[in-house]
Amino acid sequence: MRSFQRGALDLRPVIITPGVSRYAEGSVQVEFGHTKVLVTCSTEERVPPHLMGKGTGWVTAEYGMLPRATHTRSHREAAKGKQTGRTMEIQRLIGRSLRAAVDLTTLGTRTLTLDCDVIQADGGTRTASITGAYVALVLALRSLQKAGTLTKTPKLTPMAAVSVGVVGGEVRVDLDYEEDSKADVDLNIVATGDGRMVEVQGTAEHQLFDRKTMDAMLDGGLAAIQQLVVAQAKALE
Amino acid sequence: MRSFQRGALDLRPVIITPGVSRYAEGSVQVEFGHTKVLVTCSTEERVPPHLMGKGTGWVTAEYGMLPRATHTRSHREAAKGKQTGRTMEIQRLIGRSLRAAVDLTTLGTRTLTLDCDVIQADGGTRTASITGAYVALVLALRSLQKAGTLTKTPKLTPMAAVSVGVVGGEVRVDLDYEEDSKADVDLNIVATGDGRMVEVQGTAEHQLFDRKTMDAMLDGGLAAIQQLVVAQAKALE
Amino acid sequence: MRSFQRGALDLRPVIITPGVSRYAEGSVQVEFGHTKVLVTCSTEERVPPHLMGKGTGWVTAEYGMLPRATHTRSHREAAKGKQTGRTMEIQRLIGRSLRAAVDLTTLGTRTLTLDCDVIQADGGTRTASITGAYVALVLALRSLQKAGTLTKTPKLTPMAAVSVGVVGGEVRVDLDYEEDSKADVDLNIVATGDGRMVEVQGTAEHQLFDRKTMDAMLDGGLAAIQQLVVAQAKALE
Amino acid sequence: MRSFQRGALDLRPVIITPGVSRYAEGSVQVEFGHTKVLVTCSTEERVPPHLMGKGTGWVTAEYGMLPRATHTRSHREAAKGKQTGRTMEIQRLIGRSLRAAVDLTTLGTRTLTLDCDVIQADGGTRTASITGAYVALVLALRSLQKAGTLTKTPKLTPMAAVSVGVVGGEVRVDLDYEEDSKADVDLNIVATGDGRMVEVQGTAEHQLFDRKTMDAMLDGGLAAIQQLVVAQAKALE
Amino acid sequence: MRSFQRGALDLRPVIITPGVSRYAEGSVQVEFGHTKVLVTCSTEERVPPHLMGKGTGWVTAEYGMLPRATHTRSHREAAKGKQTGRTMEIQRLIGRSLRAAVDLTTLGTRTLTLDCDVIQADGGTRTASITGAYVALVLALRSLQKAGTLTKTPKLTPMAAVSVGVVGGEVRVDLDYEEDSKADVDLNIVATGDGRMVEVQGTAEHQLFDRKTMDAMLDGGLAAIQQLVVAQAKALE
Amino acid sequence: MRSFQRGALDLRPVIITPGVSRYAEGSVQVEFGHTKVLVTCSTEERVPPHLMGKGTGWVTAEYGMLPRATHTRSHREAAKGKQTGRTMEIQRLIGRSLRAAVDLTTLGTRTLTLDCDVIQADGGTRTASITGAYVALVLALRSLQKAGTLTKTPKLTPMAAVSVGVVGGEVRVDLDYEEDSKADVDLNIVATGDGRMVEVQGTAEHQLFDRKTMDAMLDGGLAAIQQLVVAQAKALE
Repeated sequence: MRSFQRGALDLRPVIITPGVSRYAEGSVQVEFGHTKVLVTCSTEERVPPHLMGKGTGWVTAEYGMLPRATHTRSHREAAKGKQTGRTMEIQRLIGRSLRAAVDLTTLGTRTLTLDCDVIQADGGTRTASITGAYVALVLALRSLQKAGTLTKTPKLTPMAAVSVGVVGGEVRVDLDYEEDSKADVDLNIVATGDGRMVEVQGTAEHQLFDRKTMDAMLDGGLAAIQQLVVAQAKALE
Repeated sequence: MRSFQRGALDLRPVIITPGVSRYAEGSVQVEFGHTKVLVTCSTEERVPPHLMGKGTGWVTAEYGMLPRATHTRSHREAAKGKQTGRTMEIQRLIGRSLRAAVDLTTLGTRTLTLDCDVIQADGGTRTASITGAYVALVLALRSLQKAGTLTKTPKLTPMAAVSVGVVGGEVRVDLDYEEDSKADVDLNIVATGDGRMVEVQGTAEHQLFDRKTMDAMLDGGLAAIQQLVVAQAKALE
Repeated sequence: MRSFQRGALDLRPVIITPGVSRYAEGSVQVEFGHTKVLVTCSTEERVPPHLMGKGTGWVTAEYGMLPRATHTRSHREAAKGKQTGRTMEIQRLIGRSLRAAVDLTTLGTRTLTLDCDVIQADGGTRTASITGAYVALVLALRSLQKAGTLTKTPKLTPMAAVSVGVVGGEVRVDLDYEEDSKADVDLNIVATGDGRMVEVQGTAEHQLFDRKTMDAMLDGGLAAIQQLVVAQAKALE
Repeated sequence: MRSFQRGALDLRPVIITPGVSRYAEGSVQVEFGHTKVLVTCSTEERVPPHLMGKGTGWVTAEYGMLPRATHTRSHREAAKGKQTGRTMEIQRLIGRSLRAAVDLTTLGTRTLTLDCDVIQADGGTRTASITGAYVALVLALRSLQKAGTLTKTPKLTPMAAVSVGVVGGEVRVDLDYEEDSKADVDLNIVATGDGRMVEVQGTAEHQLFDRKTMDAMLDGGLAAIQQLVVAQAKALE
Repeated sequence: MRSFQRGALDLRPVIITPGVSRYAEGSVQVEFGHTKVLVTCSTEERVPPHLMGKGTGWVTAEYGMLPRATHTRSHREAAKGKQTGRTMEIQRLIGRSLRAAVDLTTLGTRTLTLDCDVIQADGGTRTASITGAYVALVLALRSLQKAGTLTKTPKLTPMAAVSVGVVGGEVRVDLDYEEDSKADVDLNIVATGDGRMVEVQGTAEHQLFDRKTMDAMLDGGLAAIQQLVVAQAKALE
Repeated sequence: MRSFQRGALDLRPVIITPGVSRYAEGSVQVEFGHTKVLVTCSTEERVPPHLMGKGTGWVTAEYGMLPRATHTRSHREAAKGKQTGRTMEIQRLIGRSLRAAVDLTTLGTRTLTLDCDVIQADGGTRTASITGAYVALVLALRSLQKAGTLTKTPKLTPMAAVSVGVVGGEVRVDLDYEEDSKADVDLNIVATGDGRMVEVQGTAEHQLFDRKTMDAMLDGGLAAIQQLVVAQAKALE
């Protein structure tokens, strides 16, 4: 039986709590079961050097995990003086995804930084981060509009992310840590509610996968994302 | 008027929520008004090299601030590859304080690491960290005792910490960010409920301070710590 | 017209030159058109700490680009003291792929390190690296067998990698730099000759992609990989 | 008996030698017994970014210890690529103290950097550094005035620093290394000759301390600082 | 017998292949026997800060070795986050030498960067680098002149470099790795074809050397450089 | 006229003061005119990994410059987190030289570390460092012998170092900073009193140099070294 008594294609309970930070322009706490990520969206009235004078904005992301977010304590990256390859890979994925979620030319010459900090990790931290980051981004844009700082209406593409895996021959959606560590295949999908894809990253962990499995994973993932986009919309009401 | 309608020697509302982490041996969320720190206590069955074979345990601390814990976003230390001097200074202070809170010879040959991560910062993050860390430490020791891993009864000295300052000529306790930034003197005290001191760090920010002011600050701080130690005890019930 | 007068689903000329290093246990120079990567496979008679005593070997990869492999010079990572997120992401991909190419339990307690150094970059450096690395790995294993160091017969799964993209609405295989920089979608596939997948990484660069496009890209990519696996086999004869 | 045949509240022999550097605008060698620190004060005609355009100057400090300043050799921080937390803590303390010693608005838009390098360490290196740095600062300001670069008369507050500790139940002033390593309490005070305090940092090393002990330590420390301020004045004649 | 059946004062076969990079302004592959270095010369239309406004150009060099250029794999400097002292020493030597090879005032306000990357190392990588770098520099300057970017005729001083050593009491030129590791003295000379010297770096490895040996080494080295300058000229035809 | 009213081939006043450190096994302050270097020799009862079990000792060196040793303040390397290439080059030179000064097989399995810290720099810091380091090394060995820790008699080769340059067409020995910055050629020689060479490093700064100049520089340098070796011997009496 899966955690939370759910079926193979069911999500864990998803809780998106907006406005958790007193200071950030936009913020949410997003929970996928026991996975808990705090996302803030900070705005800055300037763009990176390579975009100066191009009349476009920028969206970027940083990702971190508290040392004891996991079963055993890991080293604090700040203390080691180095982000791991995994951290870099994840924050690059979040940044690319969120840049696809908003038309950068409608942002003005400003940068939005999404900080995704994992408070508790039980699998799916990158997909929870992306799902929460979309909400935090929208909240930040609303606050900019309310403040009159942002005059254009930003053009948004709602999107969310989910993990899919093959565990014991079965395609499952939204894996927790235990499932994740024994999955044969691991796929992360970022997509819109109507099935258009932003990012697809699949990895054969212990077993190669064929087209049929790939199709089943995409089906399961895109259906789950539809539900996540609904949850995002509700949180944004 | 001070925030939370309080008098010069009053604390902000203090909330200590134990057991906030599913994985850590001990954990609390501690709030001093809008300041919010997540503290976990992790245990490891070994000691640093310089203590090997000495039959004693070790307690250490690490401190971090989420990039958008504050009014404006600061750089992520992990991304810069370097902890600031302020971070190092604070985590050294927390570590020293907590080592004084427990007789290391009663810990067995194990290390307890206190991770203090500031979720939201409105002044007093180091004093909230120490106050919360004491509780997380006790919870971790209890869980070790319950698991039978720790056989001795650890010898504890309950202690807490508070900031005191001189603002506009008035001695005030538990400064929030706004008060802190205009304080003439800034003093952090770590002490027991009965007034024995562990750490005292006072700094003239804009104005030197005489013995009389020092005395008044110590009086105010020690009285406040008495209340914090009571709050800790309640959280530990 | 595409470079090298080729059709949308055609590879650039692929040249795999084995034995280019006098010292490495296995080595190739692999060319995909103007992209040129030097791959060496080095063996070491020990495994990383987390595998000690488990009777299994390890395969890992490192990736680098000469500063002037590209149109304009980029900073030397060694001089900056830091590998970029892109470099880390790529070398993690290569490592995971090659670990899927050989049954680690047949390697003995040794580590094989694949160094992929890009001499000239015209798009597809990560797919060329993986394609070449498989050959270098096999050559190193042969030399270990010949030397009698490796007594088991290593269990291999031949695999290669290719990029696929959507350029001007058309699905194209093995993009060069110019195509890559204007592609709407960018997909990298690592797979076997018979279509079983190891890694699939797709990114919407300027435009989201639907299932139909995804299917067409997978079809194109897997067909191209079939040819690459043949080229590898020829180089290994 | 204490080193140098002195009483509990006596300083070690203090020697302040001004003008030891041929190049620095201000310089001293300061000795507290066998502790020997070389302090230079360098001036630069610009201020850090956050002070630009505010018509104020800046004072900052850096601290280092030669690898063999101590009984056993320690690592060279430059070779390790990292300053220790201790070094950072000390140089922040020196910087804050010296900023309180001069009215920054009387400095013009320039930065004065105090480099405190410990040649030989026998306890009290931070207090010797601060005591010497005040003299080096005044010398640098004099040379700027003499050169006509500094036109305002800088407003100075003479100050010095001393360590106090409790050793074997007795309050002692200006501890040497041996005393320091067995002290129960360790307090560093920076203050003026007439008892106004700049910094107070007390730490319970092996035993908590009460108000009475705190008072005795402050009394002893402030009395010693009076003598140090006299020694500074003499060196500045 | 020496490698390549040569006499004590003979060079290994020298092959200089110009134009090996599709993108760099100038490039060569230089081989001294089995030592193989790829050199690119990149141009940038700006100079380092300390040369701004002085109407002069700049030449600089960076040196690297592929991890498996040698008999056993060495760490990748980019992964370690640090260049070794050896690397720094060598790239400083190459930079100084090449700056002496061209009158910087005839370059315009631009920087030429020579990247010397060792593909295979069998002794003499620094001397091969310098010898190849001169050719790459000239090729880059020619391409700048052809493009009309460089209007002055750059003033060049043809120069090359060779190693000399004392092995078993005999002075030998252009040592391979095996000879190098058992040489008693090791001397690197950078000079013009007519015997004017740019750099001379001699080291007693296992035995001190007298004036007579020094003279013999200089004689042998300068004679060999004459031949290298001829080889460079041929490559540049 | 040269500084200190000396002739072209004369040294500046050389002062070698032994025993300047209370803690180091061997120590000197060495002065070449206004250049002042503090050298300590520390011993450690172990050797680097690559020498373990070979029954030989090791000698190594580290070099640093106080930030304000020079006319203008330079960055503190520890604060920048990186030693410059110049520092690395110099400390490698000092280490190699001192390893040639003593038969490593007579040291026992211990490491001697020479820390050369420049207190004041007026040219010739590396040659003063080497000259002083020889004395500090001998003093440390004597103290080891006296303590009975070192039982063999260490086999020593007395050596010293000097700079030579061509300034305004004239060969000069022991250049000060002003001469050094305008020299056409710069040569550093490490040698014994009877003219056997350890290291020779010559650089054409603004003008290439021929054999005749090289010979004159070697003559001048070796003669000066003879005097330095006498000064060392006197300091060691």
